[in-house]
Amino acid sequence: MIKAGIVGGTGYTGVELLRILALHSKVEITAVTSRSDVGIRIDALYPNLRGYLADLVFCLPTIESLSNCDVVFFATPNGTAMSMAKDLLNLGIKLIDLSADFRLKNVTEWEQWYNLTHTNPDLIAQAVYGLPEIHREALKKADLIACAGCYPTAVQLGFLPLLEKNYVDAAHLIADVKSGVSGAGRKAEIATLMSETGESFKAYAVNGHRHLPEITQGLTTMAKQAVNLTFVPHLTPMIRGIHATLYATLTSEISAEDVQNLYEARYANEEFVDVLPFGSHPDTRNVRGSNRCQIALHLPQGGKTVVILSVIDNLVKGAAGQAVQSMNIRFGLSENQGLATIALYP
Amino acid sequence: MIKAGIVGGTGYTGVELLRILALHSKVEITAVTSRSDVGIRIDALYPNLRGYLADLVFCLPTIESLSNCDVVFFATPNGTAMSMAKDLLNLGIKLIDLSADFRLKNVTEWEQWYNLTHTNPDLIAQAVYGLPEIHREALKKADLIACAGCYPTAVQLGFLPLLEKNYVDAAHLIADVKSGVSGAGRKAEIATLMSETGESFKAYAVNGHRHLPEITQGLTTMAKQAVNLTFVPHLTPMIRGIHATLYATLTSEISAEDVQNLYEARYANEEFVDVLPFGSHPDTRNVRGSNRCQIALHLPQGGKTVVILSVIDNLVKGAAGQAVQSMNIRFGLSENQGLATIALYP
Amino acid sequence: MIKAGIVGGTGYTGVELLRILALHSKVEITAVTSRSDVGIRIDALYPNLRGYLADLVFCLPTIESLSNCDVVFFATPNGTAMSMAKDLLNLGIKLIDLSADFRLKNVTEWEQWYNLTHTNPDLIAQAVYGLPEIHREALKKADLIACAGCYPTAVQLGFLPLLEKNYVDAAHLIADVKSGVSGAGRKAEIATLMSETGESFKAYAVNGHRHLPEITQGLTTMAKQAVNLTFVPHLTPMIRGIHATLYATLTSEISAEDVQNLYEARYANEEFVDVLPFGSHPDTRNVRGSNRCQIALHLPQGGKTVVILSVIDNLVKGAAGQAVQSMNIRFGLSENQGLATIALYP
Amino acid sequence: MIKAGIVGGTGYTGVELLRILALHSKVEITAVTSRSDVGIRIDALYPNLRGYLADLVFCLPTIESLSNCDVVFFATPNGTAMSMAKDLLNLGIKLIDLSADFRLKNVTEWEQWYNLTHTNPDLIAQAVYGLPEIHREALKKADLIACAGCYPTAVQLGFLPLLEKNYVDAAHLIADVKSGVSGAGRKAEIATLMSETGESFKAYAVNGHRHLPEITQGLTTMAKQAVNLTFVPHLTPMIRGIHATLYATLTSEISAEDVQNLYEARYANEEFVDVLPFGSHPDTRNVRGSNRCQIALHLPQGGKTVVILSVIDNLVKGAAGQAVQSMNIRFGLSENQGLATIALYP
Repeated sequence: MIKAGIVGGTGYTGVELLRILALHSKVEITAVTSRSDVGIRIDALYPNLRGYLADLVFCLPTIESLSNCDVVFFATPNGTAMSMAKDLLNLGIKLIDLSADFRLKNVTEWEQWYNLTHTNPDLIAQAVYGLPEIHREALKKADLIACAGCYPTAVQLGFLPLLEKNYVDAAHLIADVKSGVSGAGRKAEIATLMSETGESFKAYAVNGHRHLPEITQGLTTMAKQAVNLTFVPHLTPMIRGIHATLYATLTSEISAEDVQNLYEARYANEEFVDVLPFGSHPDTRNVRGSNRCQIALHLPQGGKTVVILSVIDNLVKGAAGQAVQSMNIRFGLSENQGLATIALYP
Repeated sequence: MIKAGIVGGTGYTGVELLRILALHSKVEITAVTSRSDVGIRIDALYPNLRGYLADLVFCLPTIESLSNCDVVFFATPNGTAMSMAKDLLNLGIKLIDLSADFRLKNVTEWEQWYNLTHTNPDLIAQAVYGLPEIHREALKKADLIACAGCYPTAVQLGFLPLLEKNYVDAAHLIADVKSGVSGAGRKAEIATLMSETGESFKAYAVNGHRHLPEITQGLTTMAKQAVNLTFVPHLTPMIRGIHATLYATLTSEISAEDVQNLYEARYANEEFVDVLPFGSHPDTRNVRGSNRCQIALHLPQGGKTVVILSVIDNLVKGAAGQAVQSMNIRFGLSENQGLATIALYP
Repeated sequence: MIKAGIVGGTGYTGVELLRILALHSKVEITAVTSRSDVGIRIDALYPNLRGYLADLVFCLPTIESLSNCDVVFFATPNGTAMSMAKDLLNLGIKLIDLSADFRLKNVTEWEQWYNLTHTNPDLIAQAVYGLPEIHREALKKADLIACAGCYPTAVQLGFLPLLEKNYVDAAHLIADVKSGVSGAGRKAEIATLMSETGESFKAYAVNGHRHLPEITQGLTTMAKQAVNLTFVPHLTPMIRGIHATLYATLTSEISAEDVQNLYEARYANEEFVDVLPFGSHPDTRNVRGSNRCQIALHLPQGGKTVVILSVIDNLVKGAAGQAVQSMNIRFGLSENQGLATIALYP
Repeated sequence: MIKAGIVGGTGYTGVELLRILALHSKVEITAVTSRSDVGIRIDALYPNLRGYLADLVFCLPTIESLSNCDVVFFATPNGTAMSMAKDLLNLGIKLIDLSADFRLKNVTEWEQWYNLTHTNPDLIAQAVYGLPEIHREALKKADLIACAGCYPTAVQLGFLPLLEKNYVDAAHLIADVKSGVSGAGRKAEIATLMSETGESFKAYAVNGHRHLPEITQGLTTMAKQAVNLTFVPHLTPMIRGIHATLYATLTSEISAEDVQNLYEARYANEEFVDVLPFGSHPDTRNVRGSNRCQIALHLPQGGKTVVILSVIDNLVKGAAGQAVQSMNIRFGLSENQGLATIALYP
């Protein structure tokens, strides 16, 4: 059994990790930290977990409390993982960071966007970006995994096949992306109250969201050239789900059928990326609670603008599920272990 | 492997059966009927099921298409199961009916409430009511199982321990119950449109809901005396979940602690009934997607009115999950086979 | 023109007062306070008000900034109104308090339930309870109006006609009440996040909610005898609206028709209480944004338990609308001035 | 008083017309038709209207029942207005059509997109497009007004200032638009059930929505050149509201400040178009129930892609409100008569 620890067990990604790992047949959860809830039973806070975690209580986030883990997940605000990473790595523990601490290779850029000083920049180089569909081989040997963010997962998987082949104009990419409010985390804030976000829709951070440099870094690598992306995130009156509507202009003479075949071929062996029939309209509910990304392709009115629709559950394929998928790869398990679930409909 | 058929595979209880059975390690789904969708792939209608049902297509609801099943589930409108039951039973097939055809023992009462003529009243006597916490022994040998309705499950499990012991006044019981809109089924109706049910709350059928005689029949059996129940159902702006708020007047001199102990003892061996600490407030989301009933007890202001809060997912413990639980019992499997899942939070 | 000030202009009841008063033809809003937003334009925070408040900015909540008002509304947390009331009353300003500071006549009880020391208990006696359907005459001369709470409004208007006549058993009253989340106010709290309250339903404070003594005080006055009420509030996944489902046992030999006639007669001259046809099911959306209470009556199965359904918009008839209605009465205006609006459907 | 008739009074745009006109001081509602509800009181179907329509009942949609009207609104499915228009116009009645019958000038195109034969193509030329911000002068004398659709209103008002000036590349326009489900109308359909649309997000009709030719016709007129628009509509889990996110590439050397000034100048005298400060994020709730369009402008990362955010309430500025605004213009009333309301927040 793999002994797993979770730092930051009370946020939504932490709880989602608990939901998945509690039923994972090769994992034993041995430590879950929460500075504010030390000593409290986990299932007292999260009654949906009653009966699945024995008598486990929250502990302090110390190196000692995590020292007998084989793997530690960070489901923390930005800035925590980088402060504990070195000590844990020195103990031979594999780290899977769901925060953004190790996602950007350019530390200067990271510090600008996150408005923090990076306390462990020397670890950035060894961190492997946790998007298995692109970095599977590197993940097999990674000691430090920087899980892809939620928006970045939906957008990168959506653009990947076309950008890899350079079939679209990389200088004019648009990602109009809509997220459920759980993406904002479990924090006491007025902006994400039910009374503020229910029955309403809005864009936010149009001038620059932290996921922009992360996405751009990924797209640039795929395209092997500079890309220019306009990224507009929106807040949607629902809890889970991301729907990315992506726009690109075809530069090659390829048909709708070609585009469809390209995506089907690229993802033929990817269990968690499901290319729907051409012209479909994926619905976020069809991936809710599952680790899937569903993608559909359109060429409206037979023109040159390709529209890619890409949906994920932000807490699963966009966070906890992808983290477990990465863990499975790192520990040589079947990639879908603990993740073979079906989305809850309706 | 148990070969299972589903009649009425396109309604919400049918789809929920598919979600559960597709992952059930002892079951093979061999036939799913839908009169209107014959020949269409199931996962074309329900993309969440892609990859889990091979190439299965909907077939006609005929005896022949179901003849090699070991068990057939009816997830149909009322009136269908009773018309096919005899022929299927004659083939040695076990029947699990999620509709109301065989729930009421009194056929006259059934015909009044359901406004139909019962075409197979002689089968009613042999039908076992599918509420395992009360009828487990009979279910082990049942050929025809009449699954409990959604409201009846939440209300009966809530009242059971107190009524069995005759600790409350059976002549003045109140069940104020709130349901998500999926309980109304997947039917083209104005009343359950998002624009009609979103952001609003209402009671309905206050003068008499079809689940009233079913609940009364169950409570009368428990109490071994006549009961009088005021049952008020409400429509809640959410998709899944039932929250029953039950009121009864204590007639015995028993303490809060006694009431709590009574419930904990009664349900000690019930995997799917979870008695929360005294004074808790169960939340429907904590059972969403799971087969659990969570119950909490209150004696407000130390008075004689006991308030019982009982929550289920109407499509799982109130329908498809309970049906699978009953199947597990009938076929000698572990009762939680295929049902050991954790509610999706948030 | 009546010069109106609002203390606490950033909460939901404060903003709702602004929405109503900005269109009230006899009122000029002269001061809106917010300690945290001094100097900020009101419509910068609330863009729905752009163009309706000229260049008004938030000011500090001082006696001076309110000194030229004719009326001051308190839309503040409990404890603020009592600290400023005396000084403002001394200036001849009429006070309308939407908080709970002056609702309970028994100061000891108030201090127990609100866990505060009352700093101005001598003002309690002169405060008139702001429920116009019961206290209209006193409101015409009131200098200090303690507006009824949201739950208390829905419950008291629902029980009033039957209790006044002593037609029901006052010792066994049940109020099962459901509220939208805006009732919890505009505060940074995890419990009322969209991710916590969306798609879920729960009861809360079953053992004792602060509105219980307020309701009991009102019912006792109506019934002219002690009453015993079991009051269970619930949180509903919507923003606005309260639905009270009330249960009482008839002690008189009166028919359904008698009950209906009783309510219609009692509220015949009440513009804001609308008795629906017998057996109706009022929907909270049909009063959303309006100052109406809609009530419907039921005698399920022809028994002795009368079920009263009473709906209001918690922010209007349960708060800001009722406050303006009270102001209209106090200043001799037409009672519906500024309140003749139609609920937004759908 | 203007005598107004409404054909199709039971759909959402019909009911919204009733809500607005019932409070319009210059209008008397004299006839409301509904084929299926003849003789039924309007407020029996819509209890929010109780007390505002006297004893008005639904009547048959005949020329006779409408013959004494000064103005008739069509809130009907496509195909009805064109069949009655000529007879009503012959009686000197002004017509305001909220359906699409007279929106497209090219009848061939109309017939292709609407899959109907147009029965009165000779009236198309005289119809004035009901978007007052563009066609105010023509509306003052129009006898037949073809109100703009909901998506077309949000998109055209968003692009108008930039296209009029030819500051953007008209060959590459993108409109990513999100609508609440009330836009689908009040029809018994599975696709818009709460259980289907709640807690989920999807695009639809990506390959071609009927509003595409309407928008293109309008944009072409503004730009005085051919335009190419990619229009992707989405269904959002809320009832009211449209949020258009528009993308265009600047072809002129103009600054963010220039763009802002351009919009503010263009809409300076438009009461119902509100240009927010540069970089704002309009929220659909801030226009809910009001006739406003709120617009905000962005130039992300200082680049050449201008992002325009434009929000309306689809049932008000996108339908009934715009129709009343057009009526006010036609009858020489103040343009905001009956429309000076404030959006309901929260």
